[in-house]
Amino acid sequence: MRAVRAGLIGFGSVGRRLLLELYSHPLVRGRVEVGYILSSRGGVRGGLDEALRLAGRDEKLDNHSEFMESLGYRDILGDVELAFIAIPPSYAEGEPNLTMYSELLGRGVSIITADKTGLALRYSTLTGLAERMKAYIGYRATVAAGIPAIDAARGLRGRRIREVRAVLNATTNYILGFVEKGLSLSEAIRRAVEERLAEPDPRIDVEGWDAAAKIAILSSTLGYEASIRDVDRRPLTELGEEEIREAAGRGFRAKYIAEAHPAEKELKVYPTLLEADNPLARTESNENTIIFSLEEEGEVLLSGPVGPAWRTAKTMITDLIEYLEWRSRIQTPVA
Amino acid sequence: MRAVRAGLIGFGSVGRRLLLELYSHPLVRGRVEVGYILSSRGGVRGGLDEALRLAGRDEKLDNHSEFMESLGYRDILGDVELAFIAIPPSYAEGEPNLTMYSELLGRGVSIITADKTGLALRYSTLTGLAERMKAYIGYRATVAAGIPAIDAARGLRGRRIREVRAVLNATTNYILGFVEKGLSLSEAIRRAVEERLAEPDPRIDVEGWDAAAKIAILSSTLGYEASIRDVDRRPLTELGEEEIREAAGRGFRAKYIAEAHPAEKELKVYPTLLEADNPLARTESNENTIIFSLEEEGEVLLSGPVGPAWRTAKTMITDLIEYLEWRSRIQTPVA
Repeated sequence: MRAVRAGLIGFGSVGRRLLLELYSHPLVRGRVEVGYILSSRGGVRGGLDEALRLAGRDEKLDNHSEFMESLGYRDILGDVELAFIAIPPSYAEGEPNLTMYSELLGRGVSIITADKTGLALRYSTLTGLAERMKAYIGYRATVAAGIPAIDAARGLRGRRIREVRAVLNATTNYILGFVEKGLSLSEAIRRAVEERLAEPDPRIDVEGWDAAAKIAILSSTLGYEASIRDVDRRPLTELGEEEIREAAGRGFRAKYIAEAHPAEKELKVYPTLLEADNPLARTESNENTIIFSLEEEGEVLLSGPVGPAWRTAKTMITDLIEYLEWRSRIQTPVA
Repeated sequence: MRAVRAGLIGFGSVGRRLLLELYSHPLVRGRVEVGYILSSRGGVRGGLDEALRLAGRDEKLDNHSEFMESLGYRDILGDVELAFIAIPPSYAEGEPNLTMYSELLGRGVSIITADKTGLALRYSTLTGLAERMKAYIGYRATVAAGIPAIDAARGLRGRRIREVRAVLNATTNYILGFVEKGLSLSEAIRRAVEERLAEPDPRIDVEGWDAAAKIAILSSTLGYEASIRDVDRRPLTELGEEEIREAAGRGFRAKYIAEAHPAEKELKVYPTLLEADNPLARTESNENTIIFSLEEEGEVLLSGPVGPAWRTAKTMITDLIEYLEWRSRIQTPVA
């Protein structure tokens, strides 16, 4: 079967790692041809070898000798069947992300995305559009990319889920860990930024946007659509540093929790203190944990490493493996 | 969209619960029409209301007033698009299960199965046949039906899995628990049979056939095909009862482990003693646990309740939800 003609939108840490994986991962190598690479300021058509070298050196796409400021996603619409998306989120406005998703899917371009914006704001609109256009949306990388969180939610759709409680944001894990060790909250946030455990603008984590987007997408995946706008979003700073340290002395741990009662569309993200033997409390800074409480008795627990850029890229490869299977089903005639 | 015309093959505890779910579960009710129900001795065409009453009272299909001994799966081939399969396994011979799977898929009939035989013996043959015939195979109920094990494995296909270690067989959990409490192994096995925690013939669990089938299917799902015949199968009785109790006194727990190094096709099932803080050791009798060790550092852990008949039936409903989506993608023309 011919290689998939694809575009890569976003050339930050995830986009670069993904490009390298696309041309080295044994399960997909040779099956995808990246014809366009775009950053926020322009892009390149072709020029792959040089782009791979830039990605390997973690350099900007602007440094590419064939970089064109005029190139944007609309230029690739007629020429690719699949777009990999790894751009910054835009939760408050939604734009330009939402328009881009609509235009790509509306032209039948399938999507594998690490950006949560689209699904966190317009889950059923985008999945419905994809279905009508026979396009695929892969979004395993949007929620706890280090563990198969989206898969687990999909695999529980026939069951009744009473509650989801999860630790989904690594940055707040690190910050709360620093506070437990004696830093003030503002010092802890500054240190997380310095050590690149947080974004230069840490508000997306500290104000709960990231966790809110994730719990909304998990709820939608379970079959109960929710938007990030449905999430009661409490900032990390709602918990005082003295309170955190005093509780740590008594064996409690501070965690930033994402919680949903999906059927009631009650979603919130908030900092809280948990007893030490709670599996959410035992989540290390570099881990995520999700507990699905079943309407019947019992809990399904999923935990494992968080998804930094390289792991997020590998999880986008899982989406690509699924896309390649899906495509052969859609396109191959019955023997 | 028209209701799915389906057959139900197997009317034991899972088949009965499934029939009830098909006509009551809010997400699928009205979307499936069961035209045939078969047991090992014959079946009924139509007669649904009476079959639902029999299922509700946990009675045999033989008691149905329209029961025909002559009816078999070949009689339904031209008339259904989907078969739900909940029949006993046949790991040693493979038959009649394998022939039935081949004939159903070969006629383009999609399958949602709780029986592990086909996929444990002929994974790629059957999935390849399904792909060619544009048929669907749903098999979440074959491995740890209470937790999304198949989904988790699917969601890890882009990653390198060094090792899978799991507690997948509830019957051996119960038996080992009884031994720890003072029963001899043979008494514990007898008690598990009496309390219906084991099949009347407990060898399928005690000799590791069940766990071996599950670890083979998990490995295949991860992308490394394995058959139950590749599994080094050690019986539960390899561990002595004195050894188990003595170790329990020192805080160790006896567990029947299913293990795979998928890339090397090294699979085994065996009883062993684990330190108490090992997550596999902490698995309660009514739980399953799977640990996927990543080639990179880190482990993905999935745990939760085991899948008795009613939960297995609900998990087959998850397959059905996926089937309904899949079918609409395959069949709907582009808008």
